[in-house]
Amino acid sequence: MPQLRLALAQVNATVGDIAGNTAMVLEWTRRAVQEGAHVVAFPETVLAGYPVEDLALRKSFAAANRAAIDALAVNLREAGCGDALVVVGHLDRDDEGVRNSASLLFGGEVVATYDKYHLPNYGVFDEARYFAPGFDLPIVKLHGLDIGVVICEDIWQNGGPVAALGQVGVDLVVCVNSSPYERSKDDVRVPLVARRAAEAGAPIAYVNMVGAQDDLVFDGDSIVMGADGEVLARAPQFTEHLLVLDVDVPAGGHTATTVPEQPGRIRMPAFDVTRTVLQPDPLPAYEPLPAPPGVEPLPELAETWAALVTGLRDYVHKNGFRSVTFGFSGGIDSAVCAALAADALGPDALHGVSMPSHYSSEHSRSDAAELARRLGCHFEERPVADMVAAFVGPLGLTGLAEENVQARCRGITLMAMSNQHGHLVLAPGNKTELAVGYSTIYGDAVGGFAPIKDVPKTLVWELARWRNAEAEKLGEVPPIPENSIEKVPSAELRPDQTDQDSLPPYDVLDAVLDGYVEGDRDYSDLVADGFDAELVERVIRMVDGAEYKRRQYPPGTKITLKAFGRDRRLPITNRWRESRP
Amino acid sequence: MPQLRLALAQVNATVGDIAGNTAMVLEWTRRAVQEGAHVVAFPETVLAGYPVEDLALRKSFAAANRAAIDALAVNLREAGCGDALVVVGHLDRDDEGVRNSASLLFGGEVVATYDKYHLPNYGVFDEARYFAPGFDLPIVKLHGLDIGVVICEDIWQNGGPVAALGQVGVDLVVCVNSSPYERSKDDVRVPLVARRAAEAGAPIAYVNMVGAQDDLVFDGDSIVMGADGEVLARAPQFTEHLLVLDVDVPAGGHTATTVPEQPGRIRMPAFDVTRTVLQPDPLPAYEPLPAPPGVEPLPELAETWAALVTGLRDYVHKNGFRSVTFGFSGGIDSAVCAALAADALGPDALHGVSMPSHYSSEHSRSDAAELARRLGCHFEERPVADMVAAFVGPLGLTGLAEENVQARCRGITLMAMSNQHGHLVLAPGNKTELAVGYSTIYGDAVGGFAPIKDVPKTLVWELARWRNAEAEKLGEVPPIPENSIEKVPSAELRPDQTDQDSLPPYDVLDAVLDGYVEGDRDYSDLVADGFDAELVERVIRMVDGAEYKRRQYPPGTKITLKAFGRDRRLPITNRWRESRP
Repeated sequence: MPQLRLALAQVNATVGDIAGNTAMVLEWTRRAVQEGAHVVAFPETVLAGYPVEDLALRKSFAAANRAAIDALAVNLREAGCGDALVVVGHLDRDDEGVRNSASLLFGGEVVATYDKYHLPNYGVFDEARYFAPGFDLPIVKLHGLDIGVVICEDIWQNGGPVAALGQVGVDLVVCVNSSPYERSKDDVRVPLVARRAAEAGAPIAYVNMVGAQDDLVFDGDSIVMGADGEVLARAPQFTEHLLVLDVDVPAGGHTATTVPEQPGRIRMPAFDVTRTVLQPDPLPAYEPLPAPPGVEPLPELAETWAALVTGLRDYVHKNGFRSVTFGFSGGIDSAVCAALAADALGPDALHGVSMPSHYSSEHSRSDAAELARRLGCHFEERPVADMVAAFVGPLGLTGLAEENVQARCRGITLMAMSNQHGHLVLAPGNKTELAVGYSTIYGDAVGGFAPIKDVPKTLVWELARWRNAEAEKLGEVPPIPENSIEKVPSAELRPDQTDQDSLPPYDVLDAVLDGYVEGDRDYSDLVADGFDAELVERVIRMVDGAEYKRRQYPPGTKITLKAFGRDRRLPITNRWRESRP
Repeated sequence: MPQLRLALAQVNATVGDIAGNTAMVLEWTRRAVQEGAHVVAFPETVLAGYPVEDLALRKSFAAANRAAIDALAVNLREAGCGDALVVVGHLDRDDEGVRNSASLLFGGEVVATYDKYHLPNYGVFDEARYFAPGFDLPIVKLHGLDIGVVICEDIWQNGGPVAALGQVGVDLVVCVNSSPYERSKDDVRVPLVARRAAEAGAPIAYVNMVGAQDDLVFDGDSIVMGADGEVLARAPQFTEHLLVLDVDVPAGGHTATTVPEQPGRIRMPAFDVTRTVLQPDPLPAYEPLPAPPGVEPLPELAETWAALVTGLRDYVHKNGFRSVTFGFSGGIDSAVCAALAADALGPDALHGVSMPSHYSSEHSRSDAAELARRLGCHFEERPVADMVAAFVGPLGLTGLAEENVQARCRGITLMAMSNQHGHLVLAPGNKTELAVGYSTIYGDAVGGFAPIKDVPKTLVWELARWRNAEAEKLGEVPPIPENSIEKVPSAELRPDQTDQDSLPPYDVLDAVLDGYVEGDRDYSDLVADGFDAELVERVIRMVDGAEYKRRQYPPGTKITLKAFGRDRRLPITNRWRESRP
């Protein structure tokens, strides 16, 4: 017998666009109320967007958040949504600092505000830098049910507000999130939410952001989890969605049996519980809606592809661009970037440029043209041989200096086309070459966004084959020329060059990089794993030495736990080298 | 009557160079012991260098630190330094995480280790990301005196280990630091150390790192502070120095009267005090050394110049370069960078390049040549007109696209010379243009290091005049041509262009930027300060919009509290605009 209709609004907010985000919350609440929702929940900091980074430190920005949330409460009532409890994330500021808050709006007022307690400060997160932790636990009674609110990291750490709510006893926990996507994150997320539901002794309504902001992608994947760990409903990934569900919540609260402590000697604070009664009595029985359709997470490669498409699309659009350009080299990286761009923006927004030099092969030009033909995008050829010659002769360049000038003349050409025509330049480098520094700074690293920055070379090939197979399943033309997938990789900056002149075979290289970068495995761990000692030492030297180039690389979609960038920031002048004893 | 001879070793460590740093500690301790020192103190994390950033997260790096400190204790004894108490900063790691530690070495052993409690996580600091806080307070008795140790941020926050030491009662506090330089930081540092000495009821031996690492510069400025707030001795800034002093410390400990609490609801932990008696009895009276000569901090502009020289010199040398190159434009920015480089590296390490284009003035070439003549550095002319033409015609470039190609051809030329001859390229942009985005990405922003990245344009002029005046005082040729100081600033990318076509006058612009960036003053604050509302709005839009370019800028010496970079990181796709209501 249901007592409550929940609506989880899985929306795509834009950082800084308080007016747009507020209008979106109003519009989606209106839709949810039309569907009869009693509780409507939006993601973490939905009014501010996520991550706000140093914007958090501007007094005027926190003040504008506060003004927006107060006005939103009034506007919701005026829009006929005053009887719904609406949970909205925003920033706030008081004497102790800036807060990552979620307010509960009801009857034209902000009836309670919860400030996030656990502030993540690892990986892509810097929240200890920006926010002060909160110690207040508001609980509101709606239709006879006690409802508490927590925010994102609060469920990822032991102890803290979920445990405290469990001890006090609540009937429902609303957890609002801007939880960035990582590959296979849902495998971790679902058991985690189940564990916290058990700890709270109550169902959890878990609503997550969707879309992308700068480096981060949000997959949505909002869920309603029963107190017994059963997934009651789930939203699709990578798309805005309003998940509406009638839930059967036995009123009366529960007490958790055990409260896990945080490790170390910092003890949990005593939270201040404040109770607000909005509607003391339960609803009379009503006919539930049909259950929403069952949703499964996407298969692995489809999920990765969707994350990359989302990251690219939102970066381009949220930066006010409508079209992109980059070099079509005939190789696999630019081919996969082109297929991603066509999926994200449509082929008419894609302007491919072939920029052959003296050393370019005939197939580099024909494969590039074939790629453009299959995608139906714009394409032109801009040879760089004359530009390269204008530098090489007068400056007397040889060897590496001559190789790099070719890549740099291509970078200038693309930036000139961008300045002249308004396209955003993309940098199609993959994670493997970024890791080991196999790229030319101010050359192929030029661009505003790097779509496959976090995709290892071997995964680039996997994605290419997967995307072509998907097209074949649908009876469409596979977007990526088979020759671009099969050919031996080469930068084509000198005669007969191949990537393996400078790098180990990609399958071995990616395996070592995965251990060293993603797995935090040391030299001795990797040798114990069975990798050749000399190879491991060589790869580690390349990775540690490539830090400067990585800092100059444009942002890119993060799809693995540890991308380069904020997650791995070595001192540039580091003299530390792991090596054999 | 002195009881103790202190030696503060103000040294220049290199991040990651554990072997080199350890050898340096051994050598300086030997010198200090030759001078009869009983206590020798080295800076925070001197074995690891500072800041280690993500190196902190490598297990093998922490393990190598641990091995180095253990071996150092033995090697010190074998070198005849076993009777001195040597305080050495390093990293450590245990079940709770990585530690920022200072070990006390005596008699061939590590007799105690203190782990930093207050972990700064603002501005240039990310220590909450890397380190776990310590809760142990070791106190060792040497020659009858109780000595405690704290680390850097521990004295910048109220409450914590200094207050705890004061409550327990100690005779001397050794404070080891890697405290980055900011303009006029000594005005803050001295009263702060005095306040903590009062709180501890004991003198403080404050030893600081000197030199530069990546973005950060350390000025040294080590001091010995009496319990009464009197500066007993002070080391010179920006140079390695061994400060040796006999101090008169009444034994018996003291108890502070008041312990300031931290703000907020997080309470101080109960520290675990452990006492180790090395030598229970005081030394017999001995003849003190003559007091070290009095040292005053440098005057403001001399201090700033020294910081910039130090930052540039150590970046170049610690990265293994011996020479630098960049464009001599005839303007003030490149002239000041050239004077800095000549002071930092010597004129023979400086390779100036004049790269006139079609729009370059005659004086841009003659002033550049005159600069090189005065400095005695290498100089050549590499016109870029032909290279520019190779792009402009075939690509049909006009307007901004044509302007940018000139800057980018210069960038390619410099990088080609770097690849061919091994010089490090410097980017001579100043803080004002970096703040408002008045530069060409992949053009004049090209380079490995930006010496005046944190120097506003008006301060560039001040420094130029100051440096010339200093030369005149010494009877030397003023390094910077007067014409470069006096001329109207221009990028010379189109006919008759001046900076003020695009920017407000520099004195007003710098004043607004100082308020907005350094002072965290909002639009309304700045208007209340008397700045024109339209101008403020225009400047704020330029600053917020220039984030992408700033992220691509090379590192540079930080001389003001808030440089761009880690201290101000806006979301790139930010839609927030402060403006008139």
